[in-house]
Amino acid sequence: MTPASRLAEIAPFHVMRILADAQALEAAGRDVIHLEVGEPDFPTPQPIVDAGIAALANHQTFYTGACGLPQLRAAIAGFYASRFGVSVDLRRIIVTPGASGALQLILALLVDRDDEVLLTDPGYPCNRHLVRLFEGKAVNVPVGPASRYQLLAGDLAAHWSDRTVAALVASPANPTGTVLEQAEIAALAAACRERGGALIVDEIYQGLVYGRPHETALAVADDVFIVNSFSKFFQMTGWRLGWLVAPEWAVAGLEKLAQNLFLAPPTPAQHAALAAFDAPTLAILEARRRELEARRDYLARRLTALGFKLNAPAEGAFYLWVDAARLTADAAAFAAGLLAAEAVAVTPGLDFGHAPTMLRFAYSQPIERLGEACDRLARFCKSALPQDKHAL
Amino acid sequence: MTPASRLAEIAPFHVMRILADAQALEAAGRDVIHLEVGEPDFPTPQPIVDAGIAALANHQTFYTGACGLPQLRAAIAGFYASRFGVSVDLRRIIVTPGASGALQLILALLVDRDDEVLLTDPGYPCNRHLVRLFEGKAVNVPVGPASRYQLLAGDLAAHWSDRTVAALVASPANPTGTVLEQAEIAALAAACRERGGALIVDEIYQGLVYGRPHETALAVADDVFIVNSFSKFFQMTGWRLGWLVAPEWAVAGLEKLAQNLFLAPPTPAQHAALAAFDAPTLAILEARRRELEARRDYLARRLTALGFKLNAPAEGAFYLWVDAARLTADAAAFAAGLLAAEAVAVTPGLDFGHAPTMLRFAYSQPIERLGEACDRLARFCKSALPQDKHAL
Repeated sequence: MTPASRLAEIAPFHVMRILADAQALEAAGRDVIHLEVGEPDFPTPQPIVDAGIAALANHQTFYTGACGLPQLRAAIAGFYASRFGVSVDLRRIIVTPGASGALQLILALLVDRDDEVLLTDPGYPCNRHLVRLFEGKAVNVPVGPASRYQLLAGDLAAHWSDRTVAALVASPANPTGTVLEQAEIAALAAACRERGGALIVDEIYQGLVYGRPHETALAVADDVFIVNSFSKFFQMTGWRLGWLVAPEWAVAGLEKLAQNLFLAPPTPAQHAALAAFDAPTLAILEARRRELEARRDYLARRLTALGFKLNAPAEGAFYLWVDAARLTADAAAFAAGLLAAEAVAVTPGLDFGHAPTMLRFAYSQPIERLGEACDRLARFCKSALPQDKHAL
Repeated sequence: MTPASRLAEIAPFHVMRILADAQALEAAGRDVIHLEVGEPDFPTPQPIVDAGIAALANHQTFYTGACGLPQLRAAIAGFYASRFGVSVDLRRIIVTPGASGALQLILALLVDRDDEVLLTDPGYPCNRHLVRLFEGKAVNVPVGPASRYQLLAGDLAAHWSDRTVAALVASPANPTGTVLEQAEIAALAAACRERGGALIVDEIYQGLVYGRPHETALAVADDVFIVNSFSKFFQMTGWRLGWLVAPEWAVAGLEKLAQNLFLAPPTPAQHAALAAFDAPTLAILEARRRELEARRDYLARRLTALGFKLNAPAEGAFYLWVDAARLTADAAAFAAGLLAAEAVAVTPGLDFGHAPTMLRFAYSQPIERLGEACDRLARFCKSALPQDKHAL
């Protein structure tokens, strides 16, 4: 027996090898500093945990409707209203098992076999694999520092074909941490609309922005598909809960797909998430956002001093996407060497696209640990690199 | 914009209309008896709930690995050993977001575009929609009372084409509650193996059997794909947790898919499920199994007396699949009329295949409520049916 042909097109993540090696080091007693994982170190805020515990104690463990608890959909709609001043009918909001579930639904709805979806390179790799899953074709559009690694309306002309059905952007983006301006999103939405296609905006890092306002694409384009999550800003990663916002015409189809793919999102997580938008929770999250901002500033300064280069402003998420070209021509080998020599784990750029000299650092550790990581990194650069390189 | 063509092939469930009507009746103050839902009325056993609460209190809310907690995979392997005397390497067990997630992974692995998967008609409708999701073709094999509504090895010759990659059976089955004998499963596995295809066995109702031993297909065929769930026997529906067992060769591919589709199954549910196999939990579950058996016996007797016909032995799950032909030629209209007149909700057979005179009754309510439902049903039959019908 042979697996379906799509399997050959799903490359394993390089970071999985890093993770396995890191675990082996830890099993051998080494103190590994994890800057490779896309997960904040903060536990879920206590009011959310408490709401989850209360739900379990009250036996709220039965199926909900496929689109989620009506009161949670209403709470999400309320958050769009209070934080962004945007009015969204709660019937357009579908609660999903993680943002992965949200994107699955949207792609299953939009993508016929051989249809194309435009994505950025670099970008989050699961997205292109999900397009392939439904027998669509992910078209990776190379983006660089000039557009802050973002796809812009001007890129569409060169890449949109008669099989293209959608473009997918992320703001803030993974792995780059860059943000799309509202005017850029409006232009993208208009350009997709003109071509009869959809714009999908991944906002799973929404709220994790530094020195900028909180924003949503819905404020400038009501007909886009939004992917969002309770994982990152609300720090509920393991609960597996996300949501989508869809245009009215798409809702019935998405609901049908949700029934068939998932039955329903996890019930305890939904009850817990009802506490996500309460003032005490939001106060905790704002304090953590400020902490992440301080970490970003610290790590960017240290990495820059070591010879890494930030090519675009990292204004969101919790990643620095740095160019290691001054230090190595092979960032994946550099990452493997750094882990072996100094027990610091980072993600090779190759996981996100054609980026052989890039690395992604997640600032998902306290500043003290980031400092220790940078000290180790400095030692590694000094000892391991050829003289002509580290002299630069 | 138009949705992908697969959407047109996913029919909405008739029961959704029943559910909506039932909710409207309840909103108007009516006491609706729900015999349409595939969910037991029992809350999750307290030891499982307690383990979930402890996990939340201990902040166990971060991502796990894509295949689930190693200790949960080990606990599942232990259950196969202790209950079924079957040895399964824990690396072949992947924990998933519900059985839906397990089947998604298996089909994404096996089904290339235009590949065919054999399913039973009647059968659980989401299964054929998932095949279509990945651009495969679900081939519905009509099955009837002669094979207890099960697909047997002898059916394969007539339906297996050079595009067929797998056959999917369920034991105990939904909607029929019938069980495959071990020899029948062995023959099916051999027949699929001979043809170079896979046998997928849905065991999500495993353990909910009456007057029969607990069994798994793994005892007679080590190379099958197993879909299982914590939802039904362990009564953890809303937690959304299931698992699969795969042949060795398939594991790496399935893990890659799990990383991309789901990232990981829900963490609190996984910690809770660690208590599922403990003796106190199993004692609770055995008491509930006996209660379900008593309900089945009661409901079968009452329905038979009312003129419904059971064409095959309902030895598992919590469904009776009854032929209403003596009462109506249109069971969907009968179900709608029953709900409107007497506030009893049941599922029309059409949701499961070409079964215009069939109805599915879930005995997911206490016997007292089943009794009340049957009293109402008797009144409905008497008042609403044409004289020549209820005279039969």
